[in-house]
Amino acid sequence: MTKTWIFESKPAILSAGISGGPFEKESPFAKHFDFFSDDLYNEEKSFEKAQRSLIEKSITNSLEKGQVTESEVDALLMGDLINQLTPSGFAARQFDIPYLGLFSACATSMQGLALSAALIDGGYCEKVLTGASSHNAAVEKQFRYPTEYGGQKPPTAQWTVTGAGVVLVGKSTDPLAQAYIEKATIGRVRDINVSDPFNMGAAMSLAAADVIERHFIHSGDTVDDYDFIVTGDLAEIGHSITKDILSERGVSIPDEKFLDCGKMIYGNRPEVLAGASGPACSALMIYGYFLDELKAGNMKRILSVATGALLSPLSFQQKETIPCIAHAVAITSHKGGVV
Amino acid sequence: MTKTWIFESKPAILSAGISGGPFEKESPFAKHFDFFSDDLYNEEKSFEKAQRSLIEKSITNSLEKGQVTESEVDALLMGDLINQLTPSGFAARQFDIPYLGLFSACATSMQGLALSAALIDGGYCEKVLTGASSHNAAVEKQFRYPTEYGGQKPPTAQWTVTGAGVVLVGKSTDPLAQAYIEKATIGRVRDINVSDPFNMGAAMSLAAADVIERHFIHSGDTVDDYDFIVTGDLAEIGHSITKDILSERGVSIPDEKFLDCGKMIYGNRPEVLAGASGPACSALMIYGYFLDELKAGNMKRILSVATGALLSPLSFQQKETIPCIAHAVAITSHKGGVV
Repeated sequence: MTKTWIFESKPAILSAGISGGPFEKESPFAKHFDFFSDDLYNEEKSFEKAQRSLIEKSITNSLEKGQVTESEVDALLMGDLINQLTPSGFAARQFDIPYLGLFSACATSMQGLALSAALIDGGYCEKVLTGASSHNAAVEKQFRYPTEYGGQKPPTAQWTVTGAGVVLVGKSTDPLAQAYIEKATIGRVRDINVSDPFNMGAAMSLAAADVIERHFIHSGDTVDDYDFIVTGDLAEIGHSITKDILSERGVSIPDEKFLDCGKMIYGNRPEVLAGASGPACSALMIYGYFLDELKAGNMKRILSVATGALLSPLSFQQKETIPCIAHAVAITSHKGGVV
Repeated sequence: MTKTWIFESKPAILSAGISGGPFEKESPFAKHFDFFSDDLYNEEKSFEKAQRSLIEKSITNSLEKGQVTESEVDALLMGDLINQLTPSGFAARQFDIPYLGLFSACATSMQGLALSAALIDGGYCEKVLTGASSHNAAVEKQFRYPTEYGGQKPPTAQWTVTGAGVVLVGKSTDPLAQAYIEKATIGRVRDINVSDPFNMGAAMSLAAADVIERHFIHSGDTVDDYDFIVTGDLAEIGHSITKDILSERGVSIPDEKFLDCGKMIYGNRPEVLAGASGPACSALMIYGYFLDELKAGNMKRILSVATGALLSPLSFQQKETIPCIAHAVAITSHKGGVV
């Protein structure tokens, strides 16, 4: 029976390193991020190398704030959207930490957090770093057109976040513990028959609804047990469709409780169209803003549901629809969880 | 302290599904594989879709032989070399099983086996499918030239295996248990300063030596504790360099104990040059031949060291050297391990 993973010992997020680009510096949530590159190159020679450097910066910041050296970290779990996870793999080269590459597209952040919690709770690791990243120009180049081409996009399109969010995960007894990882539900690949790569939110809606519904069924939790249910990067259209699907399935989430990082991160800037996307979207918002709110006790418990589209330029050329995935992780401000 | 993961309950491999293409049908180990496509297309319209269909076949075979339906499987952990893991993600769409995409290039098989064992041993899952795949023509197209171009290769080049190897992992108490997963050491990214994508064996040698040395240090095991130490796809040149590096570091492995799937799978066919490669290389050999030998009791304990090169066409164009990784998993024929 596919079920929710329960982390009995409640592994804790000990520190976060959050980097962004110049556009992210203008986010209403920028005060929750800790480094911004001056431009999309961050003193590197390519966008992919810039992305690698942002990951390195986030890892270094997370290590520093977590008061550990890399030799004290047992594993580094990361992923991104670039072919063969180039930025993540090359960033991992800079650190003496065992590396596990992950790919759930923009749902990679929560795949990493769920696996990290299992590795700590199961007793295989003491401290683990996990994160996800993306770079607007690197992704545009790979999946769409060079930005210089100036191609127009439909209003359903989303804006890929530039940045990297990395957290150090350890034991609940650690004095640096900021929030606790309580349980996780791993998603199944779902396909709602959307083939338009400029409408990823709609494509991802079914996978998001599926994992949220399964999380409530398998964990026994209800919507009332959470302050917020926060999806990764569904943006305006996808978020609204997800709410409709859940409602049809008898899972009713009040609007004020149902948030989306892709709708939030840039505020109301019209140039981002339907909203933000990219593995960094949920990584920056969950490990930046939401972690700070949990740490401060302003939120008691959230369900973080990162959402990813598993398409590739190749699958688009081969006229496939877009399979999608989402993973849900319950994070609490109190070690015992919220009763 | 980076350490070896110990799986106290000794999760077991319950069944394997192994598929290959026509070239793999001629392998001296072909009797250990269970399905071969007639050609590289396997009745599909593209090489990538053929790869997807081989994964699906291996999953179906593994489920059947493991006497389970997909609803009884808690997670599917897979990866491959194609951009955005397209064949794995699209294969996962066919099954109602929570999916976790993995990427360690050709070391993906052992990343998956180590994580699967942790998920079973830690109590998060009851049964897990894990596997890795590759397709010769899909990889040639993506990383090198179209095969029709007929580009000549140097003798250091390797031949990508077409196929998919998938295993069902469960509890040691399962009556179908064939072999037991005892411990695992996750590799660090190492770079020996090779930038030639036609010399991947040499590039991967340092990562392989590093994880083997660390496995012995952290687990307390010695070479004598293993019948064989089996690397993934170092092939002639890489395997020989790895042996030299280990020897310099005081780890001496007798030739008859130190095997490489990439040297073995095709026998002595000259057209494969230095040997075989690809995520399917270790997946077919470890989950095919070696699993059968462990099950039969002809081998007592092996250390399976899958090896991967984390390069991409992009990193090559950007004149980077090749970062590599390897993961080591100890597999035994007896539940209690070998004393």
